[in-house]
Order: sequence, then structure tokens, then C-alpha cells
Amino acid sequence: MADEEGYISPPPTLPSTPCSIHLGVQAGSMRRGSDVLSTSRGTVRERGRNRSWLLSSIITVNVLILGIALVSGSVFNNVKINAINLQIFLIVLVILTTAWMLYYTIYTSREDHAVLYKDSHAGPVWLRGGLVLFGICSLIMDVFKIANYIGYLHCDSAVKIVFPVVQAVFILVQTYFLWLHAKDCVQLQRNITRCGLMLTLSTNLMLWMAAVTEESLHQTVVPPEDGNSTHSYDIRAPGGYSSCNCSHSACAVLEKAYYYLYPFNIEYSLFASAMAYVMWKNVGRLVDEHNHHSLHFRLKDVLVGPAVGLVMLVAGLGTFVIYKVDVEKGDPGKRDTVLMIHYVMNTVAVTLMSVSTVAGCAIYRLDQRDHVSGKNPTRSLDVGLLIGASIGQFTICYFTIVAVVATGAEGHLNALNLAVSLLTVIQLCLQNIFIIEGLHREPFHEDMHQASVFTNPYVLQAQAHRDIHNLPGTFMETKSSPALTVHSMHVAPSAPSGSPLPQRHRLTWKRRALKEICAFLMLCNILLWIMPAFGARPQFDNTIGAEFYEFTMWAAVVNIGLPFGIFYRMHSVASLFEVFLTS
Amino acid sequence: MADEEGYISPPPTLPSTPCSIHLGVQAGSMRRGSDVLSTSRGTVRERGRNRSWLLSSIITVNVLILGIALVSGSVFNNVKINAINLQIFLIVLVILTTAWMLYYTIYTSREDHAVLYKDSHAGPVWLRGGLVLFGICSLIMDVFKIANYIGYLHCDSAVKIVFPVVQAVFILVQTYFLWLHAKDCVQLQRNITRCGLMLTLSTNLMLWMAAVTEESLHQTVVPPEDGNSTHSYDIRAPGGYSSCNCSHSACAVLEKAYYYLYPFNIEYSLFASAMAYVMWKNVGRLVDEHNHHSLHFRLKDVLVGPAVGLVMLVAGLGTFVIYKVDVEKGDPGKRDTVLMIHYVMNTVAVTLMSVSTVAGCAIYRLDQRDHVSGKNPTRSLDVGLLIGASIGQFTICYFTIVAVVATGAEGHLNALNLAVSLLTVIQLCLQNIFIIEGLHREPFHEDMHQASVFTNPYVLQAQAHRDIHNLPGTFMETKSSPALTVHSMHVAPSAPSGSPLPQRHRLTWKRRALKEICAFLMLCNILLWIMPAFGARPQFDNTIGAEFYEFTMWAAVVNIGLPFGIFYRMHSVASLFEVFLTS
Repeated sequence: MADEEGYISPPPTLPSTPCSIHLGVQAGSMRRGSDVLSTSRGTVRERGRNRSWLLSSIITVNVLILGIALVSGSVFNNVKINAINLQIFLIVLVILTTAWMLYYTIYTSREDHAVLYKDSHAGPVWLRGGLVLFGICSLIMDVFKIANYIGYLHCDSAVKIVFPVVQAVFILVQTYFLWLHAKDCVQLQRNITRCGLMLTLSTNLMLWMAAVTEESLHQTVVPPEDGNSTHSYDIRAPGGYSSCNCSHSACAVLEKAYYYLYPFNIEYSLFASAMAYVMWKNVGRLVDEHNHHSLHFRLKDVLVGPAVGLVMLVAGLGTFVIYKVDVEKGDPGKRDTVLMIHYVMNTVAVTLMSVSTVAGCAIYRLDQRDHVSGKNPTRSLDVGLLIGASIGQFTICYFTIVAVVATGAEGHLNALNLAVSLLTVIQLCLQNIFIIEGLHREPFHEDMHQASVFTNPYVLQAQAHRDIHNLPGTFMETKSSPALTVHSMHVAPSAPSGSPLPQRHRLTWKRRALKEICAFLMLCNILLWIMPAFGARPQFDNTIGAEFYEFTMWAAVVNIGLPFGIFYRMHSVASLFEVFLTS
Repeated sequence: MADEEGYISPPPTLPSTPCSIHLGVQAGSMRRGSDVLSTSRGTVRERGRNRSWLLSSIITVNVLILGIALVSGSVFNNVKINAINLQIFLIVLVILTTAWMLYYTIYTSREDHAVLYKDSHAGPVWLRGGLVLFGICSLIMDVFKIANYIGYLHCDSAVKIVFPVVQAVFILVQTYFLWLHAKDCVQLQRNITRCGLMLTLSTNLMLWMAAVTEESLHQTVVPPEDGNSTHSYDIRAPGGYSSCNCSHSACAVLEKAYYYLYPFNIEYSLFASAMAYVMWKNVGRLVDEHNHHSLHFRLKDVLVGPAVGLVMLVAGLGTFVIYKVDVEKGDPGKRDTVLMIHYVMNTVAVTLMSVSTVAGCAIYRLDQRDHVSGKNPTRSLDVGLLIGASIGQFTICYFTIVAVVATGAEGHLNALNLAVSLLTVIQLCLQNIFIIEGLHREPFHEDMHQASVFTNPYVLQAQAHRDIHNLPGTFMETKSSPALTVHSMHVAPSAPSGSPLPQRHRLTWKRRALKEICAFLMLCNILLWIMPAFGARPQFDNTIGAEFYEFTMWAAVVNIGLPFGIFYRMHSVASLFEVFLTS
């Protein structure tokens, strides 16, 4: 019987009376009762799940808090003996995780029953593709780091070289592991697997934290223009930077190069964390794989949305190139001009997006589609990740708003900055509502069958009974997922079809509008993803944030918030694509 | 039909055939199917729930992030114009929340159907009692603040006085509101109620954040002994402290007095947040109130546990008084001695607690009691709060461990500090496991019935049917909580009892041991609660933390972590009492 999270326990051993099928379907709701009935297996399973959840949570809490203490120690401490300690801690974590992942891969390939089901929603192609892309960038970063540290080997700790080597192996193993196993719903050795996955999650979060800290410190070492940053953190050489010189000439170039690759490594850790978390949630889950409609992607239905979206994308990329080129030059006068162009571009994009999202929400109010009911853990997770990731962008926007308003918001540049931030907040709220509403609707093409079936509930009921009795051999399946029987009716040819034509036309009009809006939002989100991912940092180029807050504070906010913002935009594109398909 | 979180939608309008009762019970598991069936009301409800959850989450995210930005601005900003802005923001929030709470109280007192059910697990007496106690302390603090700021009125912003006045009204209304309505499961106006409760939660978290910040800054103004703190934040007078003098003589005393009351105000906000969150989770929930066993609290069964616990408590309070008296004197030599006594006392307590917890977990492994199954939102919430609150203590411990290990851990004092921290981490992990395992077990006295009922499933089944048909009038109740029918059997006199006597004796031995352990742990947790709650701050008296991390960082860690630690100990005492009763 299915319990609250889609996990399925074995059916209770009921006597096989003629009434048994009936009772089988009924059992799902009598969870509490049936646990009294079922002698040991179900209880043992439940106990095991509770215990391993608890154990893996405790492991995560301990690893993460110890890690936070070490990171804080390495940043705020005057003696700076902790950078090495932190790296040793990370090396141990990474080696443990790599060993577990290898063990898991070998174990599941040998045991037939280890993975019975795959969750088709988990590890979608954009996530795995992004993982591979960012993984490659991270590998290049590690190679650069190794080459760089070889130059310091004569006067610096060897741990500095060991870490990137170990990390490179880890990235290779993890990318392979997640590519292959992201969809697994593990059935055997669930306690070990839960702990292993939580270890993977903790390791990735620790690597993320260490990378974010190093990135922030790196930006603090290069002082901002007003030069009021007196801190000069150096986390490379414990004995002091000046006493240790690089023995080969490529050091400066390498160092610059690998700092450009840091953001990709940060994204890699976030992606891997998200996938490990989904796998952890899926341990022990039995998925019913009946819920796949073959939804076709046809672009010819829509025209206006993609067209306007493409115009926005091209214009945005144009301004982005100008921005990058002119900011690199470092001329303050030009910098203000390109910042203004950038802000105007963003204002236009975000305004259009908000307007079209409002239109989309209005169409939702008009249309009569049913909401998808029943708990779907992957969907709840998707929604959680969407809202969670949007917090990064929210944070940057609100910090900017406070800084601009508090300093008086004088001049066009500040006014535009304020406008962009306010509009982005509104756009984020609206887009979250739109996507979540869209994900919770039944796909359109089911709608008509449903309306017609509903007119005669007796037919439905009779059919449900017939379906149950006719299902050949799949007895347990019938019991475990009661939704199946009702659901299968939607595609049953005997269901009377033929809804009146006018209604059909009205549906088509709404569907088309929703598809247009989704296509437009997708392209705009791609634009808003590309700009920060490839290096637009108006938050630092406009000095108001760094002047208002202390620079370290501002660097921390932006460096933590932006990667989440990038993740949010990618996630939005994927979710909007799903909404596009189901509309 | 009951869905995944205990929320109950109205039954679908099924045709009233002779089979209808059967279908009614069955409907719970056919949630997906029945939603296709049910025409509008169920769907509308579900849609409404999704929408209001989303809306209230978005409100919370926006209020909190804007608040964080304002707090950060007021701390890290050189110009310091934001303290007033922050207070205006808080005043607006507090007024809105107060208005909503008054509206809610009036509305629910007029409408009969607004609150149909009360969740008996929500708002337990320790939580409400703590709320009133801390509320009174917060009121006194506000009175002191008002008296103090009156002295500065001639040269400072009037907002400074408005804030404590508004806050005092808010505390009065909120304490009344939570005392009366903490158990409510609201049925009418659920959208407004969800948003209102989330607003209450946000307001309390914002007040908590502002209080923690002010407390940290206050400690930063008084420089630590080594005198290396160059920052001197002043958030009282925007125009500079020195230019504004108090016009009456009581200012210095008042100021000192209300800073002693800050920790109580911080706890108050935490308590109110927890209760608002529980109420938010309970909106729209229909609770089946059959699950109340009259468990008696009898102390005469246990002896060793309470005795040893009392000895520990008395000894601990003795050392605590010595500690407080000697630390107040400020003599560095004496300070080390009392710190050592304090650490030794803590080491002994934590070690004994760990050992007895291990023994308790071993007994759990031996005993065969069933696990409580079925989702209980209040219990999951309890577990979540327990683990969440323990993170505060974990953080302080790990930060201490890193600081002591990194500086070499020389001397008895550092070794003891390290030992206490390590043992506390172990104790927290063990205690969490013990409490959560205990909360998930069925009460002992049910065990025997269950075992006997299980031997004959046919009896159970027949009886279940009989029970359903016999229930007089409460048709919907039967449908809505299918567990009821099976559960009622446990107390049905017809169930054959009489488990063999030897087993009964073995149970009694285990029960007694568990009760002893719970009683001992309760008293020790009370000790570990009293010491920090009444002002023991070894984290600041031992300067290693403040020296290793920068002082602001260390103050932030301790000031955020300790209130959670205090909350954790109180929560543990309450949970252990529950485990004591069910054992």
C-alpha cells in the first residue's frame, strides 16, 4: 500500500476471499490499521527507514557544521593555520565519498534486485547535461591549479597539490555516478545508501562553501576602486605570500585562468547536491511508471512568443557583449554608460516577462482544467528547489534596494538600478506562481475525456471494477497504486468522447496563448541565465553595494546569491518547458 | 477522504447504493481517482490550499529577506541611517500582525464553524507557560526601554519610543492570542488565516533577528579584556552617542537592566514563532481526536533515575551559583578556577547522560514494541523542531572544538573545554536518537492487545466491518478516518487478552529501566537549561573563542546558537516526559 510519500510497503497477508481485490484497493487508506495487521516486514521496513533517515541527517548536520566552523576559522582567524586543516578535512570527505560511489556502482551492477525502479522525473537531461558541462570546466580548473601549485612546491605544503588531484578524481567519478544512477530508486542496502548519499550531499555542499569563500576572498584581495579595503587575506601560503615565489613563469596566467573557472565549479557542486538530494529522497521508493503521456514538442503552434523572445535574446546578448568589452577596459565614464544600457535592457526584459506572466495567470483563472492531485514527491521537490533557488536572487535584489534607497537614489544609474531590482522581485514572485500553477495542472488533452466521463459516474464506477478484474496478472500493481485503475480509463477507447466543438475551440485559444507565454518566458530566462553565467557582474561594477555594506559582506551576498540565481534561471527554463508541453 | 497530511476533503458525491459505506472507506486510497470524480468542491479546496500556501510562503520570503537586508544594512553600514528605517519596518510589521490577530480573535468568536477541531498535541503546556513567562519579562524590558528613551527624547528620534510601546501592545495581544488559539485547526477563511499566520511568523523572526543583532552589538561595545576590538558600534543615537545625554539619572541602571532581559525576549520570539508555525500547519486540518490514552504520571515506579538526577541538579546549581558570583567579581585567577569547576560539572553530567542514553537505546533494540505508523504532522514537527534546535548547540560546540584544536589545546582549561564540547556533541546525537525512537513507539500497554489480536486476522476483519456498520450517526467520521475502526478495537473488551505472564514481566523490567533513564535525562536537561538561561556564558568568560575568531563573529555564533540551545533543552524535557509516559 502506498503511504504518504509514494513509498510502497508490501501488501498485508490477507485471506484470499472473493472480496480480496476489493480489500486490496481499500488497504491503501487503512495504513494505520494494516500496520497492526502486517506482522513484521512492513514494520521493520518502516523502522529501518526512520532510523536511516535519522542517522543520515545526523551525519550531514555534523559534517556541515564542522565544515562551517573550519571555513569560518580559516577566514576570520588571524593565525591562518586553518586553510591546511580545512583542505585535509575536504580531502578526507572527498576520498570517503569517492570510495562509496565506486562501491555503489559495483554493487548495483552485480545485484539484480538492487534497483527495481527508475524515477523518470529525476535527473532530467538539462541537469545531467549541465553537470557534465560544469564538470569539464571544473576538471580544467583543477589541472590549472595543479600546474600552478607545482611552481610553489619547493616552499609550500604538499597538501595544496593533493587536494586538486583528489578533487579531479572525485569529479570524474561523481559525474559518471550521477549520469548513470541519478534516476535510481534503490531497494537493497538502503541504510548504507541513504548515509552514502547524504555524505555525497555534505561533501558537495562543503566543496561549494569552500569555493564560495575562496572566490569571495579572491575578490577581497584585489581591492575595489575606492581602496578602502584594508584586509588582505591570503589563503595560499601559510608562511606568508611574499616569501614564496613561483618557480615557473606560467603561474600568473594560470592563476588568473582558474579564477575565471571558479563559478563553474560552484555551479557543479550545486547541481551535484541537488541530484544527490533527489536520489536520497528516492531511496526505497517504488514508482508506478504508468503516468507517461507522449507529449510532443511542436513549435509550429506558436509564433509571437518565440519571435519576441528571440528578439529579446539577440538584443540582450548584443548589449551583454558591449557590456563585457567596455567593462574590461576599465574606463569609469564608459562603465556608467554600459551599466545604464545593461539596466535598461534588464528593465525591458523583466517588465515584459511580468506582463506576460500576469496574462498567463489570468488565463489559468479562466480555464477549467483540473488540478493534478495526489502527492508526487518529484514535483514537490521541483517546486521546493524552484522557490529555494529564487531566494538567492531575492536576496541580491533586496540588498540592492535597501542600499539604493538608504543612500537617496540620486542619478539615473541608481534609479535604474532600483527599478531593475524592484521589477525583478515582482517578476520572481509572478514567475514562481505561474510555474507552480502550471505544474499542478492536468495536461490539456485529458481534459475533454474527463469532462465527458464525469457526466456519467455510474459508467466510471462500473468500469473501474471491470478494469480491476481484467488486469492480467499484475495483482500487486493493482493494489499498490489504486490510481492506476481510474487513470487507465482516460485512454480507454470505450470512454465516450465528443465534447461540443465550441468548447474545443475555446480550449485551443487558451492553450495557444499559454504556449506563447511559456516560449517567451523560456527565451527570456535563457537570456537572464547567460548574462551572469558568463561573467556579467553589475553588482560589483556599480560600486554602491560595496560602498554601502562593507565589501566582504557584499561579496559574500553576491557570491552566494548569484550561483543560486543562475541555477534558478536554468531550473525555470526546464520547468517552463514542462508547462509548455502540458499546456 | 484523508490525504497525505491528515487534511480531509469532503466525500465525493457517490450514488447511495447499499455498497456506499464500503466505498466511503475505500475512497481514502482512491484520492487520485476521486478527484477526477468529484466535480468542483474538492478541487477548489485543493487549489485554494496550494494557492494560499504559495502566497503565504512568498510573503514570508519577501518580508524576511527585506528584513535581513535592513539588519545587515544597519550593522555593516558606516552611515548608520538604517537603524531608524529598520525600526519603522518593524513597527509596520508589528501593527499589521496585531491587527490581524485581533481580527482573527473577533472573527472566530463570532463564527461557530470557524474552528471545528483542536489539535491536542499543539501548544503543549510547557510551550504556553514558557511563552507567558518570557512574555512578562519582555514586557518589563519594554517598560525599562520606554523609561530610558524618555531621557533621550530631547535629542533623539521619537521612533525609538514608539517601537517599545508598539512592541508591548504586540506582546500582550500575541500572548493572549496564542494562549487561546494555539490548538486551533481553522476551517473558515483559510487563505487569510494562512497568510496572517505566516505574517505572525515573519514578524516574530524579524523581532528575534533584530534582538540578536542588538545583543551582539551591545557585547561588542563593551570591549573584551584583550582590548583588540576596535569597532564601537552604536545603534542608539544616529547623530552620535556623545552629543546626546540622558535627562534623568536612572538611565544607566535602566540600560543595564534591560540588557539582562534581552535573552528572555529572544526566547519569547522563538517560542511564538514555533507556535505560529504549528498553527499554520494546522489550518484546514480535521483531527481525529480518538487517540488519547489516559497515561498516568506515577513517580513511585522509579527511584534511581530521579535520585541521581536530583543529585546532579543540586550539585550543578551549586557550582552555577559559585560560578556566577566569582565571575561577577572579575578576578582572572578565580575566573579560571570557576571555569574549571563549571567544565568538570558539565563533563560529568554529559558523560552520565550519554551512558544512560546508550543503555536506553540498547533497551529499545531488545524490546519488541511496534512503531507508530501513519503520518502524524505534529509528531514530525516535534522531531523537526528538536533536530533544528539542536543545531544551535552543535554549532557552538564545533566552533569551540576547532578553536581549541587549532591553538594547540594547551593547559587543563583548554583540555576540559575540548572534552566538554566533544562529549556534548556525542550527547546531542545520542539524545536525539533516543527521543525520536521513543516518540515513534506505541505506548507499552497497547502492545499486548496487539500481539493477541494479530494471531487471528479473521476476527479483526469481521470486527472492522461490524464496527463500521455499528457506528451510530457518525457517517462522515467513519469515512474520514479509516484508522478509527481498527484503532477502536484495541480498547474493545471483546479482543482476547491474556498474553503469557513471563513476557509481561520482561516488559515491566524494560519499562522501568526506560522510565528511570527518562527521569534522569529530564533532570539533567533541566540543569543544562537553567545554566545558560540564567546567565552562564563560559563561551565569553573563556576568551579562546573571541581570540581565535574575530569577536563579532564569535558573538554572532554564540548569540544565535545559545537561544536555540536553551529552546532545545526545554523541548527535550517535554519530549522526554512524553517518552516517560508512553514507556
